[in-house]
Amino acid sequence: MTDTLIRATFYPGGRTALLRPGMTLIEAAARAGLVINTPCGGAGTCGKCRVRFDGAAPQPGAVETARLAASEIDQGWRLACQTRLSADGKAHVPRASLFGGRHQIQTASDHDGKRAPDGEIRRIPLEMPPPDMSDAAPDMTRMERALAEALPDWNPASDALSASPDVLRVLGARLRATGFKGAAILRGARLIDYEAVDAAQPLYALAFDIGTTTVAAALLDIETGEEQGVVSTMNPQTAYGDDVLSRIAYAGRDDAALRELQGVILDAVRGSVERLCDESGADARRICNVVFTGNTTMQHLLCGFNPTALGAAPFVSLHKRGVALAASELGLTLHPEAEAYIFPVVGGFVGGDTIAGLLAADMAHAAGPALMVDIGTNGEIVLMHEGVLRAASTAAGPAFEGARISGGMRATNGAIETVTYTDDLEFSVIGGGAPTGLCGSGLIDLCGALLRVGVLRNDGRLLVGDELGAEVPEAIRQRMRTGAQGEPECVLHVSDGAALTFTQRDVREVQLGAGAIRAGIGILLKQAGIAPDDLKQVLIAGGFGSFIRRDNAQRIGLIPHELPHDSIRFAGNTAFSGAKWVAVSRAARRDAEALSARVVHVELNQDPDFAMEFALAMQFPGS
Amino acid sequence: MTDTLIRATFYPGGRTALLRPGMTLIEAAARAGLVINTPCGGAGTCGKCRVRFDGAAPQPGAVETARLAASEIDQGWRLACQTRLSADGKAHVPRASLFGGRHQIQTASDHDGKRAPDGEIRRIPLEMPPPDMSDAAPDMTRMERALAEALPDWNPASDALSASPDVLRVLGARLRATGFKGAAILRGARLIDYEAVDAAQPLYALAFDIGTTTVAAALLDIETGEEQGVVSTMNPQTAYGDDVLSRIAYAGRDDAALRELQGVILDAVRGSVERLCDESGADARRICNVVFTGNTTMQHLLCGFNPTALGAAPFVSLHKRGVALAASELGLTLHPEAEAYIFPVVGGFVGGDTIAGLLAADMAHAAGPALMVDIGTNGEIVLMHEGVLRAASTAAGPAFEGARISGGMRATNGAIETVTYTDDLEFSVIGGGAPTGLCGSGLIDLCGALLRVGVLRNDGRLLVGDELGAEVPEAIRQRMRTGAQGEPECVLHVSDGAALTFTQRDVREVQLGAGAIRAGIGILLKQAGIAPDDLKQVLIAGGFGSFIRRDNAQRIGLIPHELPHDSIRFAGNTAFSGAKWVAVSRAARRDAEALSARVVHVELNQDPDFAMEFALAMQFPGS
Repeated sequence: MTDTLIRATFYPGGRTALLRPGMTLIEAAARAGLVINTPCGGAGTCGKCRVRFDGAAPQPGAVETARLAASEIDQGWRLACQTRLSADGKAHVPRASLFGGRHQIQTASDHDGKRAPDGEIRRIPLEMPPPDMSDAAPDMTRMERALAEALPDWNPASDALSASPDVLRVLGARLRATGFKGAAILRGARLIDYEAVDAAQPLYALAFDIGTTTVAAALLDIETGEEQGVVSTMNPQTAYGDDVLSRIAYAGRDDAALRELQGVILDAVRGSVERLCDESGADARRICNVVFTGNTTMQHLLCGFNPTALGAAPFVSLHKRGVALAASELGLTLHPEAEAYIFPVVGGFVGGDTIAGLLAADMAHAAGPALMVDIGTNGEIVLMHEGVLRAASTAAGPAFEGARISGGMRATNGAIETVTYTDDLEFSVIGGGAPTGLCGSGLIDLCGALLRVGVLRNDGRLLVGDELGAEVPEAIRQRMRTGAQGEPECVLHVSDGAALTFTQRDVREVQLGAGAIRAGIGILLKQAGIAPDDLKQVLIAGGFGSFIRRDNAQRIGLIPHELPHDSIRFAGNTAFSGAKWVAVSRAARRDAEALSARVVHVELNQDPDFAMEFALAMQFPGS
Repeated sequence: MTDTLIRATFYPGGRTALLRPGMTLIEAAARAGLVINTPCGGAGTCGKCRVRFDGAAPQPGAVETARLAASEIDQGWRLACQTRLSADGKAHVPRASLFGGRHQIQTASDHDGKRAPDGEIRRIPLEMPPPDMSDAAPDMTRMERALAEALPDWNPASDALSASPDVLRVLGARLRATGFKGAAILRGARLIDYEAVDAAQPLYALAFDIGTTTVAAALLDIETGEEQGVVSTMNPQTAYGDDVLSRIAYAGRDDAALRELQGVILDAVRGSVERLCDESGADARRICNVVFTGNTTMQHLLCGFNPTALGAAPFVSLHKRGVALAASELGLTLHPEAEAYIFPVVGGFVGGDTIAGLLAADMAHAAGPALMVDIGTNGEIVLMHEGVLRAASTAAGPAFEGARISGGMRATNGAIETVTYTDDLEFSVIGGGAPTGLCGSGLIDLCGALLRVGVLRNDGRLLVGDELGAEVPEAIRQRMRTGAQGEPECVLHVSDGAALTFTQRDVREVQLGAGAIRAGIGILLKQAGIAPDDLKQVLIAGGFGSFIRRDNAQRIGLIPHELPHDSIRFAGNTAFSGAKWVAVSRAARRDAEALSARVVHVELNQDPDFAMEFALAMQFPGS
């Protein structure tokens, strides 16, 4: 291997990246800004990262010859996760291999806007008498006097007006240019800017929810709290593995790898800021606050903190309290005095997103035993009982985000979103048209429907042929078959001779995902000494939560089936809401810190009953 | 003028600087690190900045042809303050034209070391249980627990351990490398470092007193407060004018000029740090605090704050409270988390050095009416009476620092330091040997001696010939003559046919300097409603203060002559002491801030009696 850089070019689009030889094509594509599917985490088993080389293609490896047909290999098809470039190359990336575009993700919640800005950033119009022979007070003293007059709550004894050297360097000239009549912009008692009153545009805050899979970002008016725009994108780190453990492993290789993971998420953050500003007409230099929430690993990677200790038991986070830093330290070009705040965490994998969710849902004040379940790539569960908040994280896996499922996909155009049945299964497809895959809510609906119609047993077996009972409608019976690998599967759609199927293996993934969450709930209930039907309310949260139907979520055991429907509420993306609150309210930030100190972290693996509970939860509950 | 840079080379030494054409040779020399004398502020009147060109010399200007002999001009002699380079040039700088070397300056005071460090920076050895399955607390929480155990005054509720992202980025790995047994270095509740216990070297603080003329710097052990070394150097901004007004004018030209002045003082600061570290064997990366005091203008220039509003009435400072910033923001490479603190000011020209002096001398608790006089290029005067501290600044001028006096020089080798007389004047010379000039204390002594012996009248006239009374000893009588300009002068020494003289004009400078201070004292006393002999103590402070003799200072009217000798005390460099206190004590910093809020700034020019008081004070008092 030499130090010579080689060039990879990707079509359509022609994006290029310069790389050291030996890098996988997935990594190369990430550098060129393309996120290629890797539901299997780069193991070469799912075949979803197929690309076709134009011209000379690298020699196929053993995994590729096993997975791809000889004719495909001849045509230049390779698996992007397996192929390493040793010379310049050009590759076509089919749309199906790309994570792409905007997708349907819940970015709102019941709790949006319920917390008003509390003067975290204030803009105070001031009219100061200019200095003269009878009053030669220093500029900052002059401003402090005017603030004490303008603000009833300003305490001259304790509120010592301060400013950074950069602000001080321009202040004298600006005060004189405005004739000592202008607006002071304050963060608490810190002067972060001074401007002419008539030059005043709104000031903004940003809130980010950095999910393992999805990054949601909101732009808010920092003085009114009004939302100016929301965007969501894929987390481009997905190219390095779709779960947190693969990213921890990657980041642990060396410092360059950690910087690389930090770099791609910061690129995505900058891209989101750009889009939000473009779409709302806001000036990025007027963004004074940016708040990040996310799971512990995502927060670590964002800050460039080595997450290695999170990668193996006992799963240790670096920090618990929130981390405040200059936004510029994250390479963000916002207001020069903009502050970034990273949410506090509970510990282990129970991260800032859980705290943000608890904050927005006000779980600390819930009446009666209450449960919050946040369904994402990791599932976080919090139980509130008798004033104690217990939180646990489960490796639910990315099944409910459409990954590790043969026909799985993100909730974007072509995804089956809901499934109902009468004589046959009926699908509603995002964007209309023929289905190209199953997203999380469709998956839960499908399992619920197959369980109810009798082609899926509570032990997770799909039935075919003679195993099917007489009550199964003929049209559904026709969908059940034995697949190429000799395992049962359900045909969802056939197009151009290619079948979209739901396989026995897919059922197992759903069982694992739902079982992990269900077992986690069981352990928290046990430790609190209560039973499922003691729960007065269950809050389902998360970007995907609102699209899940309650009855099917209960039918597959994701939520205790003992509960009455009306105790279950979809709260939407509460983590994102909590981040928005904290972006405009210092009191909300204090509440978040208090929650992090208060929540009891339950390490599920440490509970002797967890293995048994998990095994039992693998069984779909009786209807 | 083009953008082509030209090169100036200075000998001996061969230092070079690249410059834009049109820059004066003084500025060019400053860029090359050489400080050339400019007692006259670059007016071309003193002739003390002579340099000799080697090879082609620029055309002499009118000022140079008037000041230099034709033969000198032919030999390549020019005045560095007048000559502008338009092409590459080489110039010899005679030793006499250089501000140079170390000089005798008071850097100690009665108050050194009287304030103990109070844990501004603490180093706490910790032994933490490493994480295991039964305790997966985050790293920072683990450390916080250990701190709460180790520190009786640690309050887990209010002391939230925080750290910068840079510290957090390395903390996890360091904790594990040390087996969770090491020393936490704290600033309050902020973790600024963590290291193996056995790797521990001392931690340091720096204190700087940035005078208009002199920069004094001390290195202190931050935990014990012990002084590790002191250095003093010229303020290289002297090349831009020897008083604050010329520097304010220079800085006000444009941003580049301001940056230039900031740059040269920061260079001097870095040079001092280097010398302190070299001489004491300290590692600069273990310096955690650096505190700067100085007059308002010096502090502004150090920070890059535009001092223009200080340059004309009503003389407005930018800030009053102290300014805290990262040391790295001043381009200092100390500990990565090192903090710089710039002293609070009173207002106008009454700056941080006055507050530092008041702090060290504990003037706020003085019994009875007390006066503090700090004699420097500016003279600062503070009167404490009935709990009120009144402060004023006078443009005493640099006479007492040896400037603007024909034979004036800094207190370095060859300077007349004390003057006594019996039958003749007797001089003690710094370093021994023949005198080459007069420094401040010598100047005061000389005036006192000439007044007592009867060759200098109370109205400031030097007497010659028949005007001299019979009581004047013959040897002294011989020294009095009429000089080349037709004015009286006193010959101090003749060497190789060149005379070192003290002229009528020099007497006027002393009258102006002493008169300004004396008038300032008068106004403060008047405003407080007390008379000079009400004063219970007078504290003379300043780098030059300790070398001044009380009787002569009183004889020339610098200090009220009504006071008994024993009420006058030389406190030494109290400003520097105050800076040292604040460098190791957070409580001292709070006291400094409180003083800045408390001291009443008296603008002398605003007092209707000042002009008269000044005129009267120009008269030397009766003996």
